[in-house]
Amino acid sequence: MDITFRELTALDLQEGFLETLAGLAQVDLTPDEAREVFRARLRLGIHTYVAVAQDRIVGTLTLLAEQKFIHHGGLCGHIEDVSVHPEFKQHGIGSALVRHALEEARRLGCYKVILDCFENLVPFYQRLGFRSYNVGMRIDL
Amino acid sequence: MDITFRELTALDLQEGFLETLAGLAQVDLTPDEAREVFRARLRLGIHTYVAVAQDRIVGTLTLLAEQKFIHHGGLCGHIEDVSVHPEFKQHGIGSALVRHALEEARRLGCYKVILDCFENLVPFYQRLGFRSYNVGMRIDL
Repeated sequence: MDITFRELTALDLQEGFLETLAGLAQVDLTPDEAREVFRARLRLGIHTYVAVAQDRIVGTLTLLAEQKFIHHGGLCGHIEDVSVHPEFKQHGIGSALVRHALEEARRLGCYKVILDCFENLVPFYQRLGFRSYNVGMRIDL
Repeated sequence: MDITFRELTALDLQEGFLETLAGLAQVDLTPDEAREVFRARLRLGIHTYVAVAQDRIVGTLTLLAEQKFIHHGGLCGHIEDVSVHPEFKQHGIGSALVRHALEEARRLGCYKVILDCFENLVPFYQRLGFRSYNVGMRIDL
């Protein structure tokens, strides 16, 4: 399957992007609300990448480049919200998206990329070069 | 000890802030570079909180509020770079900083706050209401 990767555009919001994301958690946004969220994310420098196959959005991944004071003002990449459209799973789209995000993180100048995942996904990310590093903690507000 | 909490200002960059952060990792920024990093962080909506005691900066913590598409465009708070000045450890400043960040995250409208920590700090964050949730992964670029 021929897959290409690029940044999300406003037009994509009506073309299967939200359906792809819905595999992850409830989205529940009107098209107007989704455009507003999209603009807010652009202002905050949040990169949303999409995988496109057969003219459809089949996967997505978020990359935040956090400007730190430590490490000589270095950038730390955070991968978030990796999701593949349910009809396109088991085609390596998730791996290819993460590899694309790592290339982009290098291009942006990140010195590391971090992410949190459930225990069952550790081998998946290890195959992509990540190592278990510490414990992900969470509090619901 | 009387401790107050507020957001970092540009003036603080010459008043012990970088020394407080240096407990965490190398900073190695000139004052001009630090101001540039500070401005970049403000543009990206990254909140830097400081704890002030005896007119000195004695602790710091970063809070990113990540605007998501999922959860009805909800905000996910990320706590990063918690550091207490070496001369002021064991005074509960770290706990108080995290509690302050949780209040701020609530005020900003975050539905959850996440962070990564080393295994030995899990009990510290559990006492503040966090639960171990998943695995923190990392790749160095």
